[in-house]
Amino acid sequence: MDLNALRNANPDHWSKASAIRALTLDAVAAANSGHSGMPMGMADVATVLFEKHLKFDAANPLWPDRDRFILSAGHGSMLLYSLLHLTGYEQFPIEELKNFRQLGARTAGHPENFLADAIETTTGPLGQGIANSVGFAMAEEMLRAQYGKKVVDHFTYVIAGDGCLMEGVSQEAITLAGRHQLAKLIVMWDNNNITIDGPVSLSDNTDQVSRFEAAGWHVIEIDGHNPGEIDAALTEAKKSDKPSMIACKTHIALGHAAQDTSKGHGALTDADQLIAAKEAYGWAAGPFEVPAEVKSAWEEIGQRGAAERRDWEERFDAMSKSKRETFNRTLALEAPKKLSATIKAFKKQMSETAPKLATRASSEKVLEVLNPILPETVGGSADLTGSNNTRTGDLGVFDVDNRAGRYVYWGIREHGMAAAMNGMALHGGIRPYGGTFMCFTDYARPAMRLAALMEVPTVFVMTHDSIGLGEDGPTHQPVEHLAISRATPNTWVFRPADTIETAEAWELALTSRKTPSVLSLTRQGVPTVRHEHKNNNLTEKGAYVLAEATGKRQVILIATGSEVSVALAAREQLQAEGIGTRVVSMPCMELFAAQDEAYRKRVLPSGAVRVGVEAGVRQGWDQWLLGERGKYGKADFVGMDRFGASAPAEELFEKFDITAENVAATAKALL
Amino acid sequence: MDLNALRNANPDHWSKASAIRALTLDAVAAANSGHSGMPMGMADVATVLFEKHLKFDAANPLWPDRDRFILSAGHGSMLLYSLLHLTGYEQFPIEELKNFRQLGARTAGHPENFLADAIETTTGPLGQGIANSVGFAMAEEMLRAQYGKKVVDHFTYVIAGDGCLMEGVSQEAITLAGRHQLAKLIVMWDNNNITIDGPVSLSDNTDQVSRFEAAGWHVIEIDGHNPGEIDAALTEAKKSDKPSMIACKTHIALGHAAQDTSKGHGALTDADQLIAAKEAYGWAAGPFEVPAEVKSAWEEIGQRGAAERRDWEERFDAMSKSKRETFNRTLALEAPKKLSATIKAFKKQMSETAPKLATRASSEKVLEVLNPILPETVGGSADLTGSNNTRTGDLGVFDVDNRAGRYVYWGIREHGMAAAMNGMALHGGIRPYGGTFMCFTDYARPAMRLAALMEVPTVFVMTHDSIGLGEDGPTHQPVEHLAISRATPNTWVFRPADTIETAEAWELALTSRKTPSVLSLTRQGVPTVRHEHKNNNLTEKGAYVLAEATGKRQVILIATGSEVSVALAAREQLQAEGIGTRVVSMPCMELFAAQDEAYRKRVLPSGAVRVGVEAGVRQGWDQWLLGERGKYGKADFVGMDRFGASAPAEELFEKFDITAENVAATAKALL
Repeated sequence: MDLNALRNANPDHWSKASAIRALTLDAVAAANSGHSGMPMGMADVATVLFEKHLKFDAANPLWPDRDRFILSAGHGSMLLYSLLHLTGYEQFPIEELKNFRQLGARTAGHPENFLADAIETTTGPLGQGIANSVGFAMAEEMLRAQYGKKVVDHFTYVIAGDGCLMEGVSQEAITLAGRHQLAKLIVMWDNNNITIDGPVSLSDNTDQVSRFEAAGWHVIEIDGHNPGEIDAALTEAKKSDKPSMIACKTHIALGHAAQDTSKGHGALTDADQLIAAKEAYGWAAGPFEVPAEVKSAWEEIGQRGAAERRDWEERFDAMSKSKRETFNRTLALEAPKKLSATIKAFKKQMSETAPKLATRASSEKVLEVLNPILPETVGGSADLTGSNNTRTGDLGVFDVDNRAGRYVYWGIREHGMAAAMNGMALHGGIRPYGGTFMCFTDYARPAMRLAALMEVPTVFVMTHDSIGLGEDGPTHQPVEHLAISRATPNTWVFRPADTIETAEAWELALTSRKTPSVLSLTRQGVPTVRHEHKNNNLTEKGAYVLAEATGKRQVILIATGSEVSVALAAREQLQAEGIGTRVVSMPCMELFAAQDEAYRKRVLPSGAVRVGVEAGVRQGWDQWLLGERGKYGKADFVGMDRFGASAPAEELFEKFDITAENVAATAKALL
Repeated sequence: MDLNALRNANPDHWSKASAIRALTLDAVAAANSGHSGMPMGMADVATVLFEKHLKFDAANPLWPDRDRFILSAGHGSMLLYSLLHLTGYEQFPIEELKNFRQLGARTAGHPENFLADAIETTTGPLGQGIANSVGFAMAEEMLRAQYGKKVVDHFTYVIAGDGCLMEGVSQEAITLAGRHQLAKLIVMWDNNNITIDGPVSLSDNTDQVSRFEAAGWHVIEIDGHNPGEIDAALTEAKKSDKPSMIACKTHIALGHAAQDTSKGHGALTDADQLIAAKEAYGWAAGPFEVPAEVKSAWEEIGQRGAAERRDWEERFDAMSKSKRETFNRTLALEAPKKLSATIKAFKKQMSETAPKLATRASSEKVLEVLNPILPETVGGSADLTGSNNTRTGDLGVFDVDNRAGRYVYWGIREHGMAAAMNGMALHGGIRPYGGTFMCFTDYARPAMRLAALMEVPTVFVMTHDSIGLGEDGPTHQPVEHLAISRATPNTWVFRPADTIETAEAWELALTSRKTPSVLSLTRQGVPTVRHEHKNNNLTEKGAYVLAEATGKRQVILIATGSEVSVALAAREQLQAEGIGTRVVSMPCMELFAAQDEAYRKRVLPSGAVRVGVEAGVRQGWDQWLLGERGKYGKADFVGMDRFGASAPAEELFEKFDITAENVAATAKALL
């Protein structure tokens, strides 16, 4: 590359882009780790985007109608941090860049949404950003339909690399975006021909242009170092009625000795090469220094949107009070006042009618009363709508001609669905929930972890939650999936026993602000186990005494979900033999663990043997069976220690010995 | 559809295909569950494939040079079971079809490879079959390069549905196949426009033809009910120098009242409609009956390959003895005789030199001595070769012009890599291992579970296995991933402490026949902790006493991987205070759990407090800390209970208190 020619052609642009490159080199050198090449390669694209297109106001990073900028290629985090510093975001003074990748800094190795207002999403696990962005763009469409274009009218811009595009989830994302004609989604592909292992051609020769076109996208190919082409492409993309992909031909680590090599992908820390690169840019400022005129040019860009934001506020204030309230309430993740009373009334009715229902059907019943009072819920399923019971009548179907629709047919795309739901939640104004089979948490897993890490209250409706699904067999029967979800920090795993606990779980999931929920629901019918109505949400404490021992308490049975009724039946047998048996329902281990010790001791006192019952692996149970820090208790577990099998459900519970008889016998063996 | 016209045009074909349709209807009706529509829609394609193209001999399902047939759309299992019954596979008498989806039957809801010889792979989780098939086809190429075309020369045929093609993993698979010009891979897409939720257009409008062409495939579009077109397409596909996709336009549930509807996707059990469909086919035979002439026509097809197989055996016998031995040995998953001695010699040398190495680097050292003596190993990495240390010098790189290469640059495709590795292992003759970061087990997870379920010894090399990776931050730092892998049945999770345990873990992973292995390896350097050479593989027992207490044993520290040296340092501190402390290294919980109680008690006797140390979540540890079935022991755990952070590794161990000081203090608090 002839850098001089580039500089001379657009000197003002060049100095702004050089600031990104220089800061990247400085920060990576200071940290002695990080990824230099991507920010250096995409500096031109990002500069034009921020200077001429992105609607933002650095003084108000949370302005609801800002354009969203998503760095899907999250390892290039210094691109984002440089931009946030240069444009004057308060949370990104130069000290943050100096502390790149250090403990406590906002400038983590990969962008973490919870560390700064202006970081829209957490990226790094490749493909997540582009898949999030589909949810961002869907949320924008939905809210625009709800509030009107005067209040909601913004673009979602994404920078994605070859890694993002090779990950399978990107295919799920781009086909979703194509299907739904998400015209306000614009992806800039950093087409630099380099991955960590070498040239892209080592592992891939996909014609990305044709691939995106096959998915219904508008594609534009440009020189990613030519500001005029970048500007024209963005202008064209914004006018398209399809999602747009701008293929930006770039040189990774532009101007550095490692340019166009896989070495350039990583940390460029060699001091001499760093100096040489800066010289090639014509950049004379010292480390972490930006010449005043360059900084002020960037700060002007950061203020460019201020007037537009003020105009927006006027338009916002002109909306009806009720619309403003709903807008603000949903953005703040506040539950509507009616929610609590609605749940109570529902529970009361269910305690009286005591239906025998699969908890997936209970979940649908709950949604039928909640969706009408929560305009912010958006439901969906990965092609299992009838099985996951996720659609209620009033939602309407989200589609090109019905942007107000609140139900999404996600197709057979569990991972894309989960990541897009996270995007909706991150966008704000939407509470997404989506379903698949519990076993296919495997497919959604990378995005489910990110929901937990990002602290967004996405709700995963996971039905068919055990061998109780029957004939579909071991490929579809979760065994380890409760343990997997429970192992994940900041995740509430609800396994409700009946309609009432299902309602309580939904109440908690839909009032959560920072924790995603997994609702583990049965395919098969289960009886109502809570006959006495309680106004309190008992699930909120994670576990509670469902049935007290008659006579001296010798046994405590702890169970979840469909096995609570098994435990109750075992209790009958034990009590019939004069063995006092308490049954504890434990719909949420995480919430129980969060209770004070006094409550936990009241529910699980010592002095009785304990048997856990759950049609899953024991892992995760010993803390409740054997006690914490070595508190004594004889205990055992009835559950699964292998994969399931294909057969009718009742036969499987027999085969794997998850029966009242075996629970009772296991308890007696401990006495 | 005018069924009469179809029948009259090709009466012999029609009766054979009708047999599949009728058996499917009967079996689903008998089971009262299952998926009827797909087998009924693809019966014509499958009939032509089996009749005219597939190289197989029903009497010898394990003939190594058979063509592989993979039903990626595994829910259509009755298609496969019908074909296996009709062509005369001994394991599939009509009774098996009558017992469809019943306990103990080979005819599980989804095809399970471990239930019958002729089932090449387990499918059902969508997209897995097509991704497996890439591994099958790669294995064929590799073995053909090794043994020659006379002995290895077969195709891999796949039937995939819309679900398979919507799953992201299919994109990883097809771009891999395109990149590597896997010309002997032929995918038949059941293009029926229907998913469970409704028409495909509800969720997808991808131009699949362009999509596959963009990935470098040869695409042929046909009427999937026209035997002549099917035959011509297969002939054309076999001649292509690219992988081929045959888009078969079909009618789901052909001839049934539910034809072309999403209802047709599921179980068609209505008795009257069943009779009407059979009438429409002109099928007069009773339930589970096949007219003799139809059955014998099918059985002839089943014997078609017998002569070819015998010829193959002659060619095989003509190979050199050493080649035949290697072929048979690797197919039988037998380790070479040299393996054990090589490992012992390596361990001895390492005990003497006691290197301080990251276990990922140790792993590379082990592979350097093992790859040369195991021609069956095929290594690779999902674009992290230099980080996963998976490539050794002698392997050569698998490529279009080097099919003998044993290293695969998988690209940024963890899921596709894992699924393709499973395919290689299922094909036989190959022991695949592949690397990514431990945290990205999330991406590979669906295929990792299937490796365990399918009982194949795929090896997952998962480096950067804790906060010890440092600055990349919480998106890249596994916390719950050891627990996740350990929760999965039939999985060995190795977390070796040093070079010697790493060698032992590799020995076990490469001699396993039915269990996949996860090797959890550090990024950061760790000291050698085993200084005294032992010929025995101590890792084989899962845990062992690494350092005995001096004086009265008051404390047992149990640790894995990088935390073993932390435990040893804590022991120093405790012993200095006169507190007798044993250190147990536990590189594999699953193998320890498989030991007899006497051994477990010897390693973990009662009478001492226990502290577990691992830079991951506690889940899964309590069984060793608190004992099984309530055996008493005061215990605690030092590890992670939240996500990590971005900072240099040493600072993170301090921040999260995983230090010798804290381990010692935790133990003392229990005394």
